[in-house]
Amino acid sequence: VTVYLVGAGPGDPGLITARGLELVRSCDALVYDRLVSTELISEAPPGAIRIGRDHLEQAAIDDLLLRLGRHRHRIVRLKGGDPFVFGRGGEEALALIDAGIPFEVVPGVSSISAVPASAGIPITHRGVSSQVTVVSGHAPGELDIDALAALQGTLIIFMGLHALAEIVEGLLAAGKPPETPAAVISRGSTPEAETVVAELAAISDAARTLPTPALVVVGEVVALSAALQQEALSLLGEPARVPA
Amino acid sequence: VTVYLVGAGPGDPGLITARGLELVRSCDALVYDRLVSTELISEAPPGAIRIGRDHLEQAAIDDLLLRLGRHRHRIVRLKGGDPFVFGRGGEEALALIDAGIPFEVVPGVSSISAVPASAGIPITHRGVSSQVTVVSGHAPGELDIDALAALQGTLIIFMGLHALAEIVEGLLAAGKPPETPAAVISRGSTPEAETVVAELAAISDAARTLPTPALVVVGEVVALSAALQQEALSLLGEPARVPA
Repeated sequence: VTVYLVGAGPGDPGLITARGLELVRSCDALVYDRLVSTELISEAPPGAIRIGRDHLEQAAIDDLLLRLGRHRHRIVRLKGGDPFVFGRGGEEALALIDAGIPFEVVPGVSSISAVPASAGIPITHRGVSSQVTVVSGHAPGELDIDALAALQGTLIIFMGLHALAEIVEGLLAAGKPPETPAAVISRGSTPEAETVVAELAAISDAARTLPTPALVVVGEVVALSAALQQEALSLLGEPARVPA
Repeated sequence: VTVYLVGAGPGDPGLITARGLELVRSCDALVYDRLVSTELISEAPPGAIRIGRDHLEQAAIDDLLLRLGRHRHRIVRLKGGDPFVFGRGGEEALALIDAGIPFEVVPGVSSISAVPASAGIPITHRGVSSQVTVVSGHAPGELDIDALAALQGTLIIFMGLHALAEIVEGLLAAGKPPETPAAVISRGSTPEAETVVAELAAISDAARTLPTPALVVVGEVVALSAALQQEALSLLGEPARVPA
């Protein structure tokens, strides 16, 4: 028995790793997150159990993996993005260790870079940014807003849409220039992707109607998107397709 | 004609994306970085031109892509990690735009998370770290060491081995606790991977003999590696293998 904690990537099913796709295609149980594409789920063998984790608490998922681990041989736990970047993969791994169930971690393409890339934004760029800070906007009260406002480079906020007004207000109050370029990318790397670009002071209003999940990018690299997106044939072309 | 800027992932050839592998297998010209695995290079069709970028300056690579773009149809520029994370993919994209050559960006698994994962370190973990800052140690004089020392969460340093003593000294002088857990992971996600774990004050000495490339991780998440690495059957098991 092995449980494979596999990153599915940011949305486009072609961005799962070759190794991850191979494991999905040979598993006998698949436990997947809400944001994993249906194309990837359909790659599991016909005889495999498929369980969406929708509405399951983390403790229930841990428990589910342990129960499956007692009866199935090859269990794939397919998680959006990368299991170890805001993915709670460490918690699932520790639960498996406690139960004595062997596991393997297969990293995935994180939204950190792939979602900005899909909007023409490189998160580092020579002469523009050589530092990236990634935070979760889930609990904005826990952020050290003063420190974040003072940082050089690129700031990326996962799950930042709901609290965006509060976070932006904090950054501006802490001295971040209001004209700093900012972007919100909704459903990045999927066919439903939408991007809004504005100055920091205006980004919260501009992104008001975008659906989640969304990634927020703040920094001068956002200004590169005008050149990189307009002229490219495609960035992350042909999404929603799994290579044969 | 299209130039595909493809991320090869952190070293293990199974960690290229399914889409990236498909493009390598169908290209007629492949331009690859020094750290890309030979297994991936050998996946290009027999008739494809293969050019290692070894010792080429960035301007020469840009020029090479432009020249190939005039004579070949499907050019894959295979870069270690992710093209837009310290990969200078933005520069190559802008050069292609200037020349009117269509391109597409295919993100890759960045070392940011995959290399720590290979050593049993989740870069975020509930209750331990919900913030990650990534910098390059290439030019340590350009780092805002005081700001980095004051940050909460996980600090990751790319190309940080050569200047590690200087960076650590700066962090300690700026008040970072000397007992902060730290790790240096050399050649992460390859069969030659080596990891050293020590307190921040001792990490530079401990990692003195490790070969490059190496990733430095500083923060409480490093302490999780003892549990996650010791008990796991394998982390990133079976490296150096491309699925059929």
